[in-house]
Formats: sequence, structure tokens, C-alpha cells
Amino acid sequence: MVKKAIKEAKMFGETDVVASSEDKNFSYIPKGYVIPTDADYFHITTNNTIYGTEIKYDMDSPIPLVADMSSDIFSRPFDVSKYAIIYGGAQKNLAPAGVTFVIIRNDILGKVKHHLPTMLNYQTHIDKESMFNTPPVVPIFAALQTLKWLKDLGGIEEINKINIKKAGLLYDEIERNSLFKATVEDKDDRSIMNICFVMTEGNEDKEKAFFEFASSKGMIGIKGHRSVGGFRASTYNALPIESVEALIATMQEFEQASN
Amino acid sequence: MVKKAIKEAKMFGETDVVASSEDKNFSYIPKGYVIPTDADYFHITTNNTIYGTEIKYDMDSPIPLVADMSSDIFSRPFDVSKYAIIYGGAQKNLAPAGVTFVIIRNDILGKVKHHLPTMLNYQTHIDKESMFNTPPVVPIFAALQTLKWLKDLGGIEEINKINIKKAGLLYDEIERNSLFKATVEDKDDRSIMNICFVMTEGNEDKEKAFFEFASSKGMIGIKGHRSVGGFRASTYNALPIESVEALIATMQEFEQASN
Repeated sequence: MVKKAIKEAKMFGETDVVASSEDKNFSYIPKGYVIPTDADYFHITTNNTIYGTEIKYDMDSPIPLVADMSSDIFSRPFDVSKYAIIYGGAQKNLAPAGVTFVIIRNDILGKVKHHLPTMLNYQTHIDKESMFNTPPVVPIFAALQTLKWLKDLGGIEEINKINIKKAGLLYDEIERNSLFKATVEDKDDRSIMNICFVMTEGNEDKEKAFFEFASSKGMIGIKGHRSVGGFRASTYNALPIESVEALIATMQEFEQASN
Repeated sequence: MVKKAIKEAKMFGETDVVASSEDKNFSYIPKGYVIPTDADYFHITTNNTIYGTEIKYDMDSPIPLVADMSSDIFSRPFDVSKYAIIYGGAQKNLAPAGVTFVIIRNDILGKVKHHLPTMLNYQTHIDKESMFNTPPVVPIFAALQTLKWLKDLGGIEEINKINIKKAGLLYDEIERNSLFKATVEDKDDRSIMNICFVMTEGNEDKEKAFFEFASSKGMIGIKGHRSVGGFRASTYNALPIESVEALIATMQEFEQASN
């Protein structure tokens, strides 16, 4: 989504790509970059669903910080006061696709000089209390139910513990298992939502066999994005720990059968 | 929605409001206007939900015809070949809010010279087969079920008959009942989706009483838009004829009690 955000920004203003990990196929979170103080805002995407990296901390930015949190909002606590705009689609941790969310600081509004289609102007939706368009009531109702579930569970702190546990179990197995390795080397950079892994060197030829073995056990949707290859296990809030345990058992069984 | 369409168009190009019935509070469909042949397209909204007027025929246009059919698509047959673009929201006759539709003629594409956000470019959605964004699967599934229901019912010709019958019964009662009158005088201009009516002269003081009487019988959502006043009964495809009959019975009962 970062590349797409850059493409859109370029259409309407000057852009400066401050940091990128494209040199290593986006397998790490860049460090040591300098945010230009003369820019209007600094845009980040906190979790990369394709490459399995995640900025799991609230960064300090000298200029307004804008974050696409589509794929990790409500998975862990964050300090909302650090962000000027947080936006995203609901379909990962909040509700079925069809609704989006925006959290915006009031002082950020009203700075766009050129014409914006009314629908794309955040002020429109604030003025109309999110009812400028006919609200998509089914996804909104589902979001309400999800938030109630999250609250009953113990809130964000609790789901964060569960998510760390789920991701931890799986990353540990990937480390332990001789057949698999994580695509993201630095543990701090690893996503707790999307866990990407490939076959270890010399075992690349077993990729298809593992995919078929996992499929035969009902594990679907674990194929990695074509730009990474291998496998991707998404451990969004709704995924129970039992599913992670089942995948781990499958990886162990496959390893034993391969020896 | 016509006013909103004009507002948006003005931001990005020259506009010419060819016809309007604003002089009589939008209570009729303009006639005898001339479509300028040097314009890029001619935009209409086929059904006006607020004022209860409807263009129930496929007009001839010397330039590409663009129609917002949000509130009457699938209510009656239309000749798709007469339109360059047909667009709308699904939430009237197709599915719950959260999905939109566009029918576009290929030769209309690629004519916009200025930068368009990728999301607003129809070509994006054609190239990605409507999956550029995560598709809102729940409303899309509901749309499929609605279309199957419509097909089983006998198709558009059949629902059109039912809609004409529903609207006809209600307009007939409005004509007959001494307390009510339709806001749209010309029968040809009356919507078969949204039937607007007010109290007759001298009976304006009974408006609140009728509203309460109808509410007591479980009839809700019949208050007219504030810019028209009175009442509005929406008779979209999903509304059964029994609901129309119940409203008519209520109007008759109220008339008798008022005498």
C-alpha cells in the first residue's frame, strides 16, 4: 500500500520518499532516516501485509504524521495523540469490507487549496456526521459488534497479548523447523498480523508439497504473495490460537515426514 | 442529487444547467429544452426521491447520456444502449448500502485529461475487475440474491407491472381522498418509486394528526423531506403490495374519522 500511497500523492503534490526497504524486497523497516521538516506531512503504513513487516511503535515526527493502519489497527495499543491522521479499511480487524475509518486531528483540516471532490473532503463527512453518503449499515453494525467483543475480551491490551502469543508461537516454530525460515530477519520488524516464511536453502523444492499437505488438512489461504513467494499466515484478531497451533502441528508433521 | 451532481461538475469543468423545475419546487419534469451539441455529455438523474418525479422513458440525446439511476434501476425496463454511463448506489433496489454500480460504454473511457485519483478512474476498476479495492462481499452477495429473486419473479417486466400497480393504487387513493393531494401534478412525471403527497387546502392542520395516526398503525418513514413537507411513501421493489394497501386503508380510515 505504500507504493500506491506514493503514486496517489505524486498526482497532487511534491513527494519525497524518505525511506524504503525496496533494496531487500521490503523485508525490513528502514532506520536512521531523517524526516524533512519542510514537508506538509509524513506518511507511513504501519503494517505491510504482503512482506510481513510492521512499525510496532509510535514514532516521533517533527511534522504531522499520517498513518494507514488498515491492517493492524485494534491489534495493539497505540498513542493516538502522536498522529495527525489515522485511516484505513475495516476489513482486517474491525468489520467485513465495505466501511472505512478516519481519525483526524482538527488542526489538520482545511489546508487543501485545490478543488477536492466533495466525497474526498474529510470536512464533508465531519459536517454530515458520516452520513453524507448512505451509511453502509451492515458493516457498521458488524464493527459495533466487533468492538463490543473486543471490550468484553479485555480490550486492546488483552488482544495484543493474544496476538503476540499467536505470532510468537508461529515465529518460534519457523525458527526451530529446519525446513522453514522467516523472510523478515529482524525480530523487531516482524509483523504480528502477517507472518511470512519460505523454505530454507536446499528445501525450496518442497514448497509445493507443503502447500498441498497443508491444503489437505484444510489450511487454505496460506500462499505467500507472488512478490515474496512461500507462505503467509495472517493472524488477525479474529483468528483463534487453535488455528495457529494447527498450522504449527502441520509444519512439524511435514518436517518429520520429510526426514 | 441533481444539485449535488451540478456542484461536483462545476469543480472540474464548464457546466450548463439545460433544464430545471426549481421554479415550481422541482414538482415536474422539464420539457422542450435543447441539449447543447457541443457539450461532452448530458447528465440526468432519472428518479428524484425527494420530490417524487421520474423520467420514465429513455431519452434521445445527441451527445453521450449519463444517468444516475440510483433510485429506479431494476424497477422498470430501460434501453441500456441509449446511455453512455449509468451509475448509482445499490441501496434502493439492489442491495444494502455499501456497494455501487456503473454500466459504461467502452468508447466513453480515456477522455479525462487532468489527474484523477486512481480510485475515481473507471478504467482502474475495469482493469482490476472490480477488485482494486477489497470488494464489499456482503452487499455484493446480497445483490446476487436480489437479482436471483428478481429473475425468479419474472424479471424486470414483471416487477415493473407490480411497481406500476403499487404506485397506481396509492396515487388513485390520493386523488380520491378529499384530504390528500399529490405534489406532482402531471401524471406522466410521477415517480413509481417515491410517492409524495400533502394535505389538501384547508386541511393542512391535519398533517400532524395523520402522521401520528399512521405511526400508531406501525407506518413509519412516511414523513416527506423537509423541502417538500407532507408525506412520502417509497415503493421500492422490496416493498410488498400489502404495505401499500395498508397505507391506503389508513388514509381511508383517517378520512372517515375526520368527517
